[in-house]
Amino acid sequence: METRYAEATPEEIHAAVFAAGHAPALSAPQRADLLDAIADEIEAIGDDLTEIAGQETALPAGRLNGERGRTTSQLRLFATSLRDGFAQDEIVDVALPERQPAPRPEIRRRLVPIGPVAVFGASNFPLAFSVAGGDTASALAAGCPVVVKAHPLHPGTSELVAQAIYRAMDRTGTDPRWFSLLHGSVEVGTKLVEQPGLKAVAFTGSHRAGRALFDLANRRSQPIPVFAEMGSVNPLFVLPGALGERGETLAAGYAESLLMGVGQFCTNPGVVIGIDSPEFSAFQADVAARLDAAPIGTMLSSGISANFNAVADQIAEKVTGMTHRTEPQSPSLFATSAREFIDHAELREECFGPAAIAVTAADADELMAVVAALDGQLTGTIHLADADSAIASPLAVALGRKVGRLVFNGFPTGVEVGHAMQHGGPYPATTDSRFTSVGTQAIFRFLRPLAIQNAPAGLDLSL
Amino acid sequence: METRYAEATPEEIHAAVFAAGHAPALSAPQRADLLDAIADEIEAIGDDLTEIAGQETALPAGRLNGERGRTTSQLRLFATSLRDGFAQDEIVDVALPERQPAPRPEIRRRLVPIGPVAVFGASNFPLAFSVAGGDTASALAAGCPVVVKAHPLHPGTSELVAQAIYRAMDRTGTDPRWFSLLHGSVEVGTKLVEQPGLKAVAFTGSHRAGRALFDLANRRSQPIPVFAEMGSVNPLFVLPGALGERGETLAAGYAESLLMGVGQFCTNPGVVIGIDSPEFSAFQADVAARLDAAPIGTMLSSGISANFNAVADQIAEKVTGMTHRTEPQSPSLFATSAREFIDHAELREECFGPAAIAVTAADADELMAVVAALDGQLTGTIHLADADSAIASPLAVALGRKVGRLVFNGFPTGVEVGHAMQHGGPYPATTDSRFTSVGTQAIFRFLRPLAIQNAPAGLDLSL
Repeated sequence: METRYAEATPEEIHAAVFAAGHAPALSAPQRADLLDAIADEIEAIGDDLTEIAGQETALPAGRLNGERGRTTSQLRLFATSLRDGFAQDEIVDVALPERQPAPRPEIRRRLVPIGPVAVFGASNFPLAFSVAGGDTASALAAGCPVVVKAHPLHPGTSELVAQAIYRAMDRTGTDPRWFSLLHGSVEVGTKLVEQPGLKAVAFTGSHRAGRALFDLANRRSQPIPVFAEMGSVNPLFVLPGALGERGETLAAGYAESLLMGVGQFCTNPGVVIGIDSPEFSAFQADVAARLDAAPIGTMLSSGISANFNAVADQIAEKVTGMTHRTEPQSPSLFATSAREFIDHAELREECFGPAAIAVTAADADELMAVVAALDGQLTGTIHLADADSAIASPLAVALGRKVGRLVFNGFPTGVEVGHAMQHGGPYPATTDSRFTSVGTQAIFRFLRPLAIQNAPAGLDLSL
Repeated sequence: METRYAEATPEEIHAAVFAAGHAPALSAPQRADLLDAIADEIEAIGDDLTEIAGQETALPAGRLNGERGRTTSQLRLFATSLRDGFAQDEIVDVALPERQPAPRPEIRRRLVPIGPVAVFGASNFPLAFSVAGGDTASALAAGCPVVVKAHPLHPGTSELVAQAIYRAMDRTGTDPRWFSLLHGSVEVGTKLVEQPGLKAVAFTGSHRAGRALFDLANRRSQPIPVFAEMGSVNPLFVLPGALGERGETLAAGYAESLLMGVGQFCTNPGVVIGIDSPEFSAFQADVAARLDAAPIGTMLSSGISANFNAVADQIAEKVTGMTHRTEPQSPSLFATSAREFIDHAELREECFGPAAIAVTAADADELMAVVAALDGQLTGTIHLADADSAIASPLAVALGRKVGRLVFNGFPTGVEVGHAMQHGGPYPATTDSRFTSVGTQAIFRFLRPLAIQNAPAGLDLSL
């Protein structure tokens, strides 16, 4: 790669956060205009963006153009929502001057920006979860200035998008302190999170890095909230009735979901669970055949590829069932028993890439034991048919307690950006299951309530 | 005191959280019935409760009866709110089967309980923020089983209230795993927060203890959210116009707020700030005279009393202005300059008890510099008149950025329990300014969103 970038200096990191802490407030309509302008400017970059992003990430043009569409859509969705008054409603307890033994004052509760937000670009979404992605869009929508730490795997893409943001700011007369882009590796991220003026952190990436940032933020003399989305294995259950009715369709859908983006999605369904039966065996063979037939994709980086291979090797060593894997880097399916899966925590950890573990439970009870052994997940999926009604409800309830999104008769990849989306599950899927990083609700990570008691008329309270 | 209690054993602590983790779900109407029944049973205890609470805390009967009223009111407020559908609404993104390039699935987002909650009783609210206080009420309302760690300063009161809860559970047929009371000191609290099955912590108390619990919870292999309300100095600004119009009324109101409950409220206004003028000097003299005339109250414990005295001694040594203090334990007012207040961080720390620091700013600019030096606060108060309009808005905006509740022409003590209340400010007032511990919004500390995609009709999804 020819892209060259300079590691941000400690002075630059400090200056970026200090500036953000002193940026003048923007009204909701001003924020909406800024978000729309950023979307426009990203579109205006044209093919250069697809080209450099393709070079940096090895993602195909179709995927990148789709991702650009998602990026601009979510910026505009926040803009539209803000214009509709989203997150600006007040809760009002009216004054009760005659109340005994004491009058009640008027209290109006509204949401105010939490302050400067650090956004860490994600390697696997160079546009939709990077410089102007969902985290930046929701922070700006909340009224929080943003400092982005670019992901070192796509610095050129990051720079192009940041320039689009600067143009949008210029066009809308937005104070330049509202946004900064910093390049660099781990040390830059560490220094960034340590800045006293920083008020929140948004991150998408590995568990190791996410947990490190979370720990760092909590060790500060003034701790700050970190929303780290750290992926998961996204268990997918195929119940006997569903397998009997449409086993082949399920195998095709599952293989497609697993292979999508070379398996590099946070919602990649890395574990598929069924009850011992000829149908579940056939399902596994069908999936394996489809994986074998698929081309070996190029992963985001040689490091990610090497890691995929190493983790897949470990799984292959651990499982005693069939291993479907044609060559080191190929899409793979590993077979194991429920007992083995429950006994070995390593099998329940994410393998980032196009590999999955098929877990065979002896019966419905063992299926429930598998659910009990699962850690927190971004998603959990159940494929069912009418014949599965006896197990469906207990399974859905048990799985619902472990996940942020419960999918029926579908696949977890393809996260909708809407008002109802929840992309954030119990730890270790994320650091705080009460929030989401996808969809309009993501704004609430960066807002805090302020109760205003007996405000005099005419006072300007634009925070 | 004759009350004797046994320190909970590690086995008992584990058993309490384990049971809570296996309690069957309660529907919203069932939770409402339980909350109402708890309120009824607490009322049914009668005078015994006031008597033992009075012995344990030295709080007068009038205050304790008022606090009992607040306790039962907030239990019933949550019950009524639940019956009205509070926190049970869904966000729905309807299915768009014809959407191109891919259909959109139906997604319904609702809130589900986060799981077992540990509640730490507060020394200064033996009823309203203890065993059946706001934390317990909001956790139960959220559908989360509760394990209370009783405060060792009022074990008898705690026991009486816990028995009322057990009777209420019995009467409503609630599974006993929904509630446990543990007695003990720091070690019991530590062990409690370390239980793997615990999902959240609610605490009201000192910064030292709150931060220790926060750190402990974040060091867990599975970190859990801690809402710790750790008090603050609750700065109160008296602007020149207000002083000119009603200086004496302000002094009387301020002294009353400061003396209330022997100064042992989280919202005690421990710092009063004004601009140098004969009126502000007269205000200070007036407040000091009122404090001198007040009787020396009995504090919650000898430890709290000794601590109050020690902190007041430190302040007396630090300030170079007038010290209004008749004897060691008496209500006190210390005078200092804005410069001194800004330069000495110790002066900006809470002195738990009936003592305040009066800060004199040379001018409006110095007043703003005082705001800039403040840490996060539960509340901030501004007394103003029409003549103060030039400074009022910038002051309100700057102060609003530091506090959870902004009070105009009133006093911060007397926290309303309503829908709009926000009792939770930026750190170090609390560990997470995005939540409140008072009012119905407190429920959101213990709920997390679950998105349900394409749920089949008829599936029972009671989590």
